[in-house]
Parts: sequence; structure tokens; C-alpha cells
Amino acid sequence: MTYAAPISQADLSKPAVDRNVLVAAIQACFDCAQACTADADADLAEPQVQTMIRCIRLCRDCADVCLATGAMLSRQTAFDPATARAALQACVQICKVCGDECEHHAQLGFVHCQTCMVANRRCEQACNALLSLVAALPA
Amino acid sequence: MTYAAPISQADLSKPAVDRNVLVAAIQACFDCAQACTADADADLAEPQVQTMIRCIRLCRDCADVCLATGAMLSRQTAFDPATARAALQACVQICKVCGDECEHHAQLGFVHCQTCMVANRRCEQACNALLSLVAALPA
Amino acid sequence: MTYAAPISQADLSKPAVDRNVLVAAIQACFDCAQACTADADADLAEPQVQTMIRCIRLCRDCADVCLATGAMLSRQTAFDPATARAALQACVQICKVCGDECEHHAQLGFVHCQTCMVANRRCEQACNALLSLVAALPA
Amino acid sequence: MTYAAPISQADLSKPAVDRNVLVAAIQACFDCAQACTADADADLAEPQVQTMIRCIRLCRDCADVCLATGAMLSRQTAFDPATARAALQACVQICKVCGDECEHHAQLGFVHCQTCMVANRRCEQACNALLSLVAALPA
Repeated sequence: MTYAAPISQADLSKPAVDRNVLVAAIQACFDCAQACTADADADLAEPQVQTMIRCIRLCRDCADVCLATGAMLSRQTAFDPATARAALQACVQICKVCGDECEHHAQLGFVHCQTCMVANRRCEQACNALLSLVAALPA
Repeated sequence: MTYAAPISQADLSKPAVDRNVLVAAIQACFDCAQACTADADADLAEPQVQTMIRCIRLCRDCADVCLATGAMLSRQTAFDPATARAALQACVQICKVCGDECEHHAQLGFVHCQTCMVANRRCEQACNALLSLVAALPA
Repeated sequence: MTYAAPISQADLSKPAVDRNVLVAAIQACFDCAQACTADADADLAEPQVQTMIRCIRLCRDCADVCLATGAMLSRQTAFDPATARAALQACVQICKVCGDECEHHAQLGFVHCQTCMVANRRCEQACNALLSLVAALPA
Repeated sequence: MTYAAPISQADLSKPAVDRNVLVAAIQACFDCAQACTADADADLAEPQVQTMIRCIRLCRDCADVCLATGAMLSRQTAFDPATARAALQACVQICKVCGDECEHHAQLGFVHCQTCMVANRRCEQACNALLSLVAALPA
């Protein structure tokens, strides 16, 4: 059960873009932030932690950027397209890089990195879908 | 689809408490943080914004504390019971106060506050359930 | 007294760019996040809160993006130039837009917005200075 | 240059407690959050990273709780003493535990942990000083 959709429905500020695409991006950002926070810590529990340093670092970056983006998207009042665009571009970028790093570890058998990679890919896709709508708005 | 359960399952650090209770609290914290972020902004869109000031303020506090608590709980490695206890107590406190404020506005017909109240109550309950387990751990 | 410079000095990971420029950006991001958090709340205390809605919203966005960027820049290990570039671009963008909005209110006599505008402008400049260095790094 | 003091001075909401003590706690929280974020990453760069796992974990917890507390304290409008008390108690707790862990590493010669310990101790003291004032407020 999540709340992004019902609160958006009840918000007097109508969203600047399609609500379903917006809500999907919000949810993907918060879910990805949790996944990256947990994965960075699960990496610390691995005996080969020395080989996970880049994954830990990128997961921390990704969690922070996803939270900032998810919070910004949760605010529909006085929406600023240029700012949303820049935040979405940063979020897509870190989700891509972090997802690639997690995929590398997933292929080596780290199941928590496999799950985090799925979160990264979904968030990248959801933010890209929203970005294409925001990019079409007047500046 | 969320990732707290599968990453916890794959984490070599076994959780210090029952995993289902832990995962429920993590998810409730992140969901409540999103709900409070969105509700604070939906309050800003109300013509009677002057009557929503306390709700906006408490929703901001609640979002911040829920994120900090949800992130802490997502980390199972080197878990510190006394710290988790203090964080959970703070989270229960703000969810209670914010939930009461949202309930007041819900009764006046603000649907977004009604949804946020549900998020607050669920998070308060999930954190209280976890708190009773963490309180039983050796210090 | 801040700690960004001494911890950077003691970090075995040498920063990818000039340390003074990096530390200045880190500090500016954290200071701007605090300023925006406080200004958004001071706006709520104004009798004309209805005229401050856009300022509140942009200050919240700016606080979130500054914190994510300041945290990312605080991590020197496994630094990823393309990700830092995207985050810095988002931070410059929101600091510019939020600073413009605060300047508008500063001219109307809101002293807290005047202070927040200074924080926005300094952070924008510090991030732009760092961005020019990061943009020159190999991808 | 920081902004907590001048924005507080200009805020129409008068703080519920002595402003100097409040501003000192706000600043200590944001500074400690940055120090912990940087120290957790500097730990990752150490060849003996396996011995730093608990320090990394506690620094991440401390950064998150300090940011939530510093943000809450930055909001003076509709201040809720019971909530501030619970947040300050959590902040004091994690600063104490994280400071003890950093002190251990400082004694082994890790200079970045020495600096982080200073940040933890100052934040613990600043939050304790504020806590004694908040505890004296009517509930």
C-alpha cells in the first residue's frame, strides 16, 4: 500500500503532467532509495568487501539523488519544469551507473545486488518516461 | 513492488529481530515519508493555508524522521539496539503527533490529510511493533 | 568550525579535482540546505503566506538537492565524474531558480529571504566553479 | 559563513528556547552530518576496511539522524516540544555511540575518525544543552 496516488488525486494542484507517469516515478524513486540504502549495507557484510567499494559508493549516491528527486516530484504546487528536468536527468544518470555496477556484481552471484539492479533499472525507466513529458512542457 | 524483503533475505547479516516485523517497519517509514512530503505540499495548495501551518510543519518533521529511521533500519550490519530504540521512539512520537493533526484536518474534509493520517498510523504501529522486539534485545 | 577540509585532507582517496574548490562546494551545499529549510519555515510564519507558496516550494526542492549533492561530493572514493556533473547541474539550476524567487521577496523586505538568497547565490557559484573542473575530467 | 542565526533573527516565529543554544545545535547537527558522511567514505578507502564496518554503519546512522534533527530544529513555526525532545534524545544517543566508535579508531591513528569524533562530541553536547531547555518547556 502506497500513498502517492491517493494524495495526488486529492491535491488541489493538478499535476503538470500525466498523473500515472508522475506517480510511477515518485514510487520508483522512494523504492530505489530504500533498495540502494540496504544494498550498500549488504555489501559491507560480504567477505570480499574490498571488491564492493564502488558499488557501496554509487548506491549511496543513488539513494540520496532518488530521495531528493522523489521528494521534488511529490510536490505538485508551483511545479518548475526546468528544475524537475535537471533533477530527473541526474536521477537517470546515477540509476544507470549504479544499475551497471550492480549488474556486474549480480553476474558474480550477489543476489542483493541483483535486486538493487532491478530497482535501479525501474527507476531509470520511470524517470525517463517522466522526463520525456516534462521536457515537452513550456520552460 | 518493493525491495526491502528480498534484499534482507540476501543479506549475509542476519537481522537482530524478526525479519517480517523489521521489513514492515522499513516499508512503513519510507511510505510515510512520501505521504508526509506530498501532504505538506497539498496543504500549501489549500485556500485556507493559514489553518494548515501546524500540519505542514509536522508533516515536514515526520518525513525527515521517517527517512532517517527507515534508512537506519535498512542497515542490518553492526546493528546497535540502543540507537535503533531511540530512533524508533522518535519516529513513533512524530507519527502520533502528525497523525493527530492530520486526523483533525481529515474530519474537516481534507482528503489528502486523511490519507496521510493512515500512513502515520500504520507507521506508528509498525515502529511500535518493532520497538517491542528491539527493547527486548540485550543492550 | 566545519570538518569538510580536515576529513578530506586525511582521506586516503585523493580528490579528483582541486581540494579547495571541492570543499567550498560541499560547505556551500550543506549551508544552503539549512538556509532553505529555515527560510521555507519562516515563510510559513508570514501573514502573507499565500504570496510565499512558490518560495516555500522552491526552498524545499533546493534543500533536498543541496543535501544530495553535498553528500555525493563528500564521498571521494570511486568518484564518478559523469554522475557528479549531473548532480552539480541540477544543484546549480535549483539554486538559480530559488535564488531568483528569494531575491524577489528580499526586494519586498523579507529579510529571511534576503539571507536565503545569499546562500543560494554562493552555492550556485561554488557548484559552478566545481562543475567547470569536473567537466574537464575524462568521462 | 552560516545562515542559521540571521534567518532565525528574521523569523517572525520567535523560538521557544534561547536562540543561541538553538542555533548552536542546528549548526552542530548539519556539520556532524557532513563529517559522518565524509568519514564513512574515508573508512572505505582504508586497506583495513574490514575493521571499519561498524564505524561506517554508525556514521551513516549518525548522518541521517543529525540531518533530520537539524532540519526539525530549523523550523521554529508551530514548534512541538515533545517531538523535539524525542528527536534530540535520538541524536544524542547516536552521536555518543558513533563518537565512541570514532574515538577507538582515532586512537589507532585514523585522523579522519579523530575529526569525526570531534564533530560527534560537539553535536552531542550542543543537543544535550538544547535538550535541557526543551525538557523544561510545557508539554
